[in-house]
Amino acid sequence: MTAAMRSKRRDKLVPRLRVFLLQNFAPVWRTVERVPPLARLVNRLIINTACNTAAFRPHAMSTLGDYTSWSSLTDRTYLGRMIPPLPAAARDGPSLAETTALFAPQGPQQQCPKSTLLFPIFAQYLTDGFLRTSSTDRARTTSNHDIDLSPLYGRTPAQTLALRAAPDQGRGKGRLKSQWIGDEEFPPDLYRTGTSDIAADFADAHGTALLDLPLGMNADPPWAAGEHSRRRLFAVGGDRVNSTALVAMLNTLFLREHNRLAAELERRNPGWDDTRIFETARNIVIVLFIKIVIEEYINHISSACFRLRADPRVAWNAPWNKPNWMTVEFSLLYRWHSLVPETMLWDGERMDTAAILLDNRKLIEAGLAKAFKWAGQTPAARLGLHNTAIYLENRLTVESRAIEQNRARRLPGYNAYRQAMGMNPVDDFDCMTGDRARQEELRALYGTPEAVDFYVGLFAEDAGLNTPMPPLLGAMVALDAFSQALNNPLLSRQVYCKETFTGYGLEVIEATGTLWDVLVRNLGPTAPSDIRAEDVRMTRPDWRRRFSAF
Amino acid sequence: MTAAMRSKRRDKLVPRLRVFLLQNFAPVWRTVERVPPLARLVNRLIINTACNTAAFRPHAMSTLGDYTSWSSLTDRTYLGRMIPPLPAAARDGPSLAETTALFAPQGPQQQCPKSTLLFPIFAQYLTDGFLRTSSTDRARTTSNHDIDLSPLYGRTPAQTLALRAAPDQGRGKGRLKSQWIGDEEFPPDLYRTGTSDIAADFADAHGTALLDLPLGMNADPPWAAGEHSRRRLFAVGGDRVNSTALVAMLNTLFLREHNRLAAELERRNPGWDDTRIFETARNIVIVLFIKIVIEEYINHISSACFRLRADPRVAWNAPWNKPNWMTVEFSLLYRWHSLVPETMLWDGERMDTAAILLDNRKLIEAGLAKAFKWAGQTPAARLGLHNTAIYLENRLTVESRAIEQNRARRLPGYNAYRQAMGMNPVDDFDCMTGDRARQEELRALYGTPEAVDFYVGLFAEDAGLNTPMPPLLGAMVALDAFSQALNNPLLSRQVYCKETFTGYGLEVIEATGTLWDVLVRNLGPTAPSDIRAEDVRMTRPDWRRRFSAF
Repeated sequence: MTAAMRSKRRDKLVPRLRVFLLQNFAPVWRTVERVPPLARLVNRLIINTACNTAAFRPHAMSTLGDYTSWSSLTDRTYLGRMIPPLPAAARDGPSLAETTALFAPQGPQQQCPKSTLLFPIFAQYLTDGFLRTSSTDRARTTSNHDIDLSPLYGRTPAQTLALRAAPDQGRGKGRLKSQWIGDEEFPPDLYRTGTSDIAADFADAHGTALLDLPLGMNADPPWAAGEHSRRRLFAVGGDRVNSTALVAMLNTLFLREHNRLAAELERRNPGWDDTRIFETARNIVIVLFIKIVIEEYINHISSACFRLRADPRVAWNAPWNKPNWMTVEFSLLYRWHSLVPETMLWDGERMDTAAILLDNRKLIEAGLAKAFKWAGQTPAARLGLHNTAIYLENRLTVESRAIEQNRARRLPGYNAYRQAMGMNPVDDFDCMTGDRARQEELRALYGTPEAVDFYVGLFAEDAGLNTPMPPLLGAMVALDAFSQALNNPLLSRQVYCKETFTGYGLEVIEATGTLWDVLVRNLGPTAPSDIRAEDVRMTRPDWRRRFSAF
Repeated sequence: MTAAMRSKRRDKLVPRLRVFLLQNFAPVWRTVERVPPLARLVNRLIINTACNTAAFRPHAMSTLGDYTSWSSLTDRTYLGRMIPPLPAAARDGPSLAETTALFAPQGPQQQCPKSTLLFPIFAQYLTDGFLRTSSTDRARTTSNHDIDLSPLYGRTPAQTLALRAAPDQGRGKGRLKSQWIGDEEFPPDLYRTGTSDIAADFADAHGTALLDLPLGMNADPPWAAGEHSRRRLFAVGGDRVNSTALVAMLNTLFLREHNRLAAELERRNPGWDDTRIFETARNIVIVLFIKIVIEEYINHISSACFRLRADPRVAWNAPWNKPNWMTVEFSLLYRWHSLVPETMLWDGERMDTAAILLDNRKLIEAGLAKAFKWAGQTPAARLGLHNTAIYLENRLTVESRAIEQNRARRLPGYNAYRQAMGMNPVDDFDCMTGDRARQEELRALYGTPEAVDFYVGLFAEDAGLNTPMPPLLGAMVALDAFSQALNNPLLSRQVYCKETFTGYGLEVIEATGTLWDVLVRNLGPTAPSDIRAEDVRMTRPDWRRRFSAF
């Protein structure tokens, strides 16, 4: 935490007042929550305010070019742009190396006072589904632009098909392929045992993978033959699911929920075929996921005392309800490397978080319940400058590639984005951070806040009260979360009904708001019986006690 | 025209009152039009009322299947469904042959009292761009789902590229390929002179066409070698542009306008490259086209005395502003075969309309001005049963294929669609038509209005007052026109500005509301000087005089 408060000189009055009201008077807000019509109204007002701060989609421009064309308005392989780029003229300012140095650790990594490790892990699993800058052309994206749980189901119909279990394999209808290890269900292995070959289930006749392969495997040093299989990498929909065993843990949770729902739907609808059961389970799981995004994840980020709900009706007639299109800004602002702690608690011991990169063995050994519990015991690191985990920083690539992308796409500066979000531009560094040393460092590098790169400004601001997020970042995350989740086609007026989910499915949706709600339904019979809801939270227990936060 | 009026017994009161007010008191409406804020308000009210009559998109179902799935909500190669299909159980009712017979002519073809031939021709050119049921799988579509002038620019980036002129060919920047025949500019020839081979400009190295080929060429009898070139088929974006020389005439108009705008933009923006000029001209032409759709075409269809305007602001915050998705119903309701007259006036003589099918020679000979004038002198036929042109009816395919598609997709009946559009279901045939013989014919075939096929019901209703459209058809056309045109990305709040079109482009858009407005800018120097705005109208001159209609 910084020693001094940043200057509020440039903050607008009305938003300050709104935030003040929402951050205080907890008993009043608890009362409001207990009066359903009032709660719905307040929920609607908060969400609409967040979504109305910036211009609605469609954005006039994409990374295709510097002007609006029919292609820029329709070719969704390019990233959108929230505001137009800077002119192509040469850019002054600090070098890439100097700027990257702003993220290098100084002394031991600082903890986030509010978040557990479940928070950044969930953020990664969520955003890996749709923030997908192409590795071959960084102006482009491989995103479907929707919250479709592509890490679980795949990005394409062909991938989905490869992940589905054939009903004649005795598994029942509508299931995803999986494997049982003892009493625990996991995704199947991607590689043939003892080899580096793709398992037959996930390769075509030529041995070519039908799925996107895990990213990062070709890093130095190259893996020895058989290493792929030894690390128990899973066959899943997303190329980043295996990046750490904790992301694989989340994917495993939703795989189990899918298969549990499919079994229930099969039992309740004996006339349905394999595909209808699969599709209906998928409908339910995607909406469960969106509910957790709003009701656990966004409530964790929010500094408000009022608990937000994923009420589909809020979006039905909202003018901000426009088709999704992931922007280059959204893609950059979610690079939360500094939230990742260097070490974590694993079975009561400190373990290097790097030990579970691209390796699911410890997850399989521990089982889902314990892995969730240990992640919930581990504090996240603090989001901000000079706090990126050593093992990420040593590679140097993650932060410098973000700054490079920021500059290659010629994004306007930090202040331009504050204005696009309805905030005043800041006129001095003391409005960004109360930390004097940080102010001096930024001044030496940039001279004026006007010159600060968007990506740097996002993380240079001090976090707000009762939120892990700095103000600009928090506003942009809220805008994008609401306007790109609540507009999901499954939540739309014609679709959000029992014909889409079944009556049973709607009950499950209604009863689910947290990861714990899903986990408790999917613990194997041998899971430890002492795991409780309090153990599986994005908000640290000490913070919950101090602030009676969610 | 039918002798007696249909019974209004089942019409709802509020819509009847609204229609009555709008169809009368012309002087009041003229006054309203002259007070801009009031005119904007009334315009907004009428458009919102039309769009709010039915459920908003996304539709819960597509022709992919009988239930809602993530695929049905996202795979846009399937047609949407306005309402769910009937169960798959066997269907009772009249045979295909009996039903098709409802469209067969009885005696001479009847004229439409309101419309000239320019009306159905424009409808065809408009809808060929996005109502594109696939010929290989009739549950699917090849549509981009947007009004993007694909008949002019192509459906894919590769087609667009093939249609663009290289600037180093001395043509100037941003142009579409074209040919000059005397003083008249036309699209280039698709076939090499004297052959049936694709011209080099539009074929790859193997001679395969880079464009969709004209539909209908492989009909019996097969064409002799060289016939393709002799008929001067044009190289264009759409596979139906060459279907008659009059559709090719409309495409020629917008091609000339594109190239005219490109020349102007090049002169005014000397620093711009080929692509920027092309894209900016395309931005302008698409919006010009949408303006004509609303301000000429929809005003012609509308029975109201108030003249509607294409005001982009109406859609900016409208809850009905949702992404387009062409439905199977929309695809069927636009089969306006009976509007096509069997003969037309051509240079003062009666000519079989069939003479210009897949043959542009007469258009090239006459030039654009005369062709427009003669089409404007020709009355359209009356939309309805027993009026489909002999040359279409003889092939039998057009109407029976529509009925087949209606039944293969298991569309609910006519009354179900009345209810989906906020109308009361009719309880007897006298509410559909005042024509006794027609009532008896429908009763003999169907027994009850409940059993009437959607496709038949659309055309069995009598046309309303001062409109060529029957009531259900008219309501569905209005809904789709507004909700799928005014939501075009080019009209959205962030995009509709001079950065997208240039200031000059915005002036051109502002000054354009009719085909004539575009034509008068694109008449060659040798065009007849006596052609006037009155000659190029979708509304017949006798009707305009009688009803002071647009």
